[in-house]
Amino acid sequence: MTKVAFQGEIGAFSEDAAIKFFGVIEPLPSRSFADAFESVSRGAADFGVVPIENSQAGSINDTYDLLLKYDLNICGEIVLPVNQCLMAPEGETPETIKYVYSHPQALTQCEEYLRKLNATIMPTYDTAGSAKLVKEKGLRHSAAVASRRAAQIYGLKLLAENIQTNPSNYTKFVVISRQKAGRAANSKTSIVFATKNMPGTLYASLGAFATRGINLTKLESRPSRQKPWEYVFYADFEGHVEDKPCLAALETLRGTTKFIKILGSYPRATES
Amino acid sequence: MTKVAFQGEIGAFSEDAAIKFFGVIEPLPSRSFADAFESVSRGAADFGVVPIENSQAGSINDTYDLLLKYDLNICGEIVLPVNQCLMAPEGETPETIKYVYSHPQALTQCEEYLRKLNATIMPTYDTAGSAKLVKEKGLRHSAAVASRRAAQIYGLKLLAENIQTNPSNYTKFVVISRQKAGRAANSKTSIVFATKNMPGTLYASLGAFATRGINLTKLESRPSRQKPWEYVFYADFEGHVEDKPCLAALETLRGTTKFIKILGSYPRATES
Repeated sequence: MTKVAFQGEIGAFSEDAAIKFFGVIEPLPSRSFADAFESVSRGAADFGVVPIENSQAGSINDTYDLLLKYDLNICGEIVLPVNQCLMAPEGETPETIKYVYSHPQALTQCEEYLRKLNATIMPTYDTAGSAKLVKEKGLRHSAAVASRRAAQIYGLKLLAENIQTNPSNYTKFVVISRQKAGRAANSKTSIVFATKNMPGTLYASLGAFATRGINLTKLESRPSRQKPWEYVFYADFEGHVEDKPCLAALETLRGTTKFIKILGSYPRATES
Repeated sequence: MTKVAFQGEIGAFSEDAAIKFFGVIEPLPSRSFADAFESVSRGAADFGVVPIENSQAGSINDTYDLLLKYDLNICGEIVLPVNQCLMAPEGETPETIKYVYSHPQALTQCEEYLRKLNATIMPTYDTAGSAKLVKEKGLRHSAAVASRRAAQIYGLKLLAENIQTNPSNYTKFVVISRQKAGRAANSKTSIVFATKNMPGTLYASLGAFATRGINLTKLESRPSRQKPWEYVFYADFEGHVEDKPCLAALETLRGTTKFIKILGSYPRATES
């Protein structure tokens, strides 16, 4: 069975994404994103599934940094609608809840709903882990915000569904692998590069794509981690790295950049 | 006295930044970034000071979203070296600490040091608030990660200084105001814009600056919050919005964008 590493406990949203992509999987829950990358890197898992962007909150910085650090390939992407659920042991109702446990990002997504509950917010490192905690410690007047599947797994009652403030909230995940994905009809490519210096060269760098009619679907700057206020750029464009126009664009790009790393070419998720 | 709103308790890093910028201030601690913006907006504070970027972790997304939402002006920036300190009540030593309280971002910055401590990580919403909590609740075997000044304010003993993994770690803050800053020798300008659509128009948009020799010092995409996978771009460039080349560039930019908002022109911090 395909062994897939992801951050969080069994029942994590990342596991939902992995199941959507692979069907049945052998899950490898991991303490951190870095641990998931490490497992794929040293062969303890066949693939990793990590969140890369939320349609509300934006890019997940840790994932971008790890994509730069590890020598792995993005070989797929998955888009999942966010469905945050409030869950608690049998006997509790929304009115009896005084403490709500979850990951800060999930808590932020549900801020309006939680404010009405008037409960104390208890930030943790993990959504599914919060469900597990509430169940295993037998916490009273306590609920977790996590996935529908986490409620089933940990035997908690669903008190409310889709409690995130913005109903059209999606998270994008990437599948990471030691192998590269082949060409497909709807390929996209993710790269990271550093320009020689900022003013004209970023413009020139984008010109490598614009003048060839290659659609850039994302561009994001991140601190370089080498020197304060120096940046690297993460870009997504349409096409496979082996397509001729893309090869030519990357060749041009090498002239205006200090380094380029191709993170992977992979089939675009239909929802993205 | 100048009344300055910031997120966090007295002793917050943002208050350090405000003191560096204004000298003596009347502090207005606020529960959230949004509360700080709200206080400035309705005149309860003269200014707000909020973090916008960390040299390691990158942009602080909430601040960018609030700059777009509120009709306020950036009128200054402050760069502060990060000095994370471990602090605890008298009698504790690094060896006796079993629980460490702080904001997840501070905890992440100090990951290597904290791993060696072998203590349980207790995420909270605030660094200075964690110092206050440890002191006021008289928690045993517990420490907080916060600023040097927070240790003094809450009467905790410094167990270690500069415990962040990367020693050259800086945070950039912006000063927000209902008023605009006048022209200065070293002005920079922050804007946010949405392109008409992504492929060629972002390239054309940057051309408005590149062809006039205007130095772009930052470019960052963020989800638009209107529609999944649509983006707005935050850009910083050198010069004041009333400088002739900048006026001309913005005029050109209007041709390739759906909207532009000028967040402010202000003197550049010397360290940035």
